Amino acid sequence: MIRRLAILGVGLIGGSLARALRAAGAVEEVVGFGRGLANLERAVALGVIDRVESSAARAVSGADMVVLALPVGSMATTLRQIAPQLGMQTVVTDVGSVKSSIVSAAHTALGEHFPRFVPGHPIAGTEKSGVEASFAELFRGRRVVLTPVAETEPDALERVRSMWRATGAETVVMDIGHHDEILAATSHLPHLLAYCLVDTLARMDDSRVIFDFAAGGFRDFTRIAASDPVMWRDICLANRTAILDALGQYRSDLDALMAAIGRDDGVWLQELFARAKRERDALNGERK
Amino acid sequence: MIRRLAILGVGLIGGSLARALRAAGAVEEVVGFGRGLANLERAVALGVIDRVESSAARAVSGADMVVLALPVGSMATTLRQIAPQLGMQTVVTDVGSVKSSIVSAAHTALGEHFPRFVPGHPIAGTEKSGVEASFAELFRGRRVVLTPVAETEPDALERVRSMWRATGAETVVMDIGHHDEILAATSHLPHLLAYCLVDTLARMDDSRVIFDFAAGGFRDFTRIAASDPVMWRDICLANRTAILDALGQYRSDLDALMAAIGRDDGVWLQELFARAKRERDALNGERK
Repeated sequence: MIRRLAILGVGLIGGSLARALRAAGAVEEVVGFGRGLANLERAVALGVIDRVESSAARAVSGADMVVLALPVGSMATTLRQIAPQLGMQTVVTDVGSVKSSIVSAAHTALGEHFPRFVPGHPIAGTEKSGVEASFAELFRGRRVVLTPVAETEPDALERVRSMWRATGAETVVMDIGHHDEILAATSHLPHLLAYCLVDTLARMDDSRVIFDFAAGGFRDFTRIAASDPVMWRDICLANRTAILDALGQYRSDLDALMAAIGRDDGVWLQELFARAKRERDALNGERK
Repeated sequence: MIRRLAILGVGLIGGSLARALRAAGAVEEVVGFGRGLANLERAVALGVIDRVESSAARAVSGADMVVLALPVGSMATTLRQIAPQLGMQTVVTDVGSVKSSIVSAAHTALGEHFPRFVPGHPIAGTEKSGVEASFAELFRGRRVVLTPVAETEPDALERVRSMWRATGAETVVMDIGHHDEILAATSHLPHLLAYCLVDTLARMDDSRVIFDFAAGGFRDFTRIAASDPVMWRDICLANRTAILDALGQYRSDLDALMAAIGRDDGVWLQELFARAKRERDALNGERK
């Protein structure tokens, strides 16, 4: 049971976590802080949080669990602001999609509290943002990756684990670098490709007609391009190396595809499409 | 009212068209032909078609409306096979995603029947294939692009138009070249990007873990990579110029994105993502 939970950034993820823990009876009090006052007031009105504090530092004071659910680029500053107010038993965790940059920021900012910082990342989300989009079931059946380091206290890890289990999620421990590479491939790369496609089409001469004739496949394909721009800017900057590596591989493969079309190589094309279809079909048999 | 409809290729599109016309009471008899006998027998069992013919030529004999719903690469051969059996009032149309190559094949193959060939393309579909995946509502509220040429008889165009209207679709007349460019951008490009992404990830060292951690966004993004490989091979070959042009523009934009990440240009990245999000959000206000 969490006595006082401080959520810094009460958006889709932070809001859904608060809702899920309340629904599970796993938290007594939820204090929120974030940049947008209207969003925070809405969070109180919706019953997602009990009250709003006027700063991140005040929000964490007296909390036994602190969750940073902010864009990756805001984590370092916030960690510095809250460090002086953390209790000696307070556990701090985050939900960022890149772990290496956050762990190094936490190491610098938290000092003696660093062993109670548990880097985390729920593999869940939608393209929507803000507390209005949050819902208690977001994490049910999903994975939450935790990337503890050598210094991380086992008890802190266990408390974060049990918080996520209360939301219906499964927790997995992974190495930081491995997490960042996997996420570059499965999440960061597709988001960038989708943003890029929508923008490429928007800048074509015929863009109005093009979007007018976009069918269901296009809509599914580009849904993630409606995600929060600041969040994705921060992810690009924080996971630069792994993202550039994945983009580089993709670009080489795209070059090979263009070459095959250029030389009318139907055999090569059909093999590629059949191989990809087999992999994609296989995904449908697994967790949704 | 269509007296006898011949569907060549009783898959997702051909089967859905037959179902929709039956549901609307707009057809008396449906004759089918296609490559897979099991699929055709299933089509009869499901009541999608009334009977199977043993060749394309026999299927069109006595039909007043012939619909080619085959992969684009099979159209030329089939048009040559059916030409001798077409009646002087028979209207022929197709559902191919590329129009220029089909119109030129029809011009060569159909001879005196060419004025009653109406090139068509319903902007509808799913990633599934085969008659099992067909359903009567597939075209409801969707657009069907018709690309008649100078020789096309107005009465033939009108008959194809009224067939599609009976399915609940809206018809739009468009220039052939324009259609092929628009489709290269809105449909062919996203399909190729999705196939390529799944294959790039499948060939990474960690591919099992990567697919294991793929979340909802990835699934939406790659759903179209489960589409029929032969159909997409044919589309690539038939619409080569427009597809290479669209892929080339996309690749340049991807290069610019990689350069911005490489130089840590957060302002550029946020502008790109915000621009794309605005365009994508705008799509949600329009037809689904």
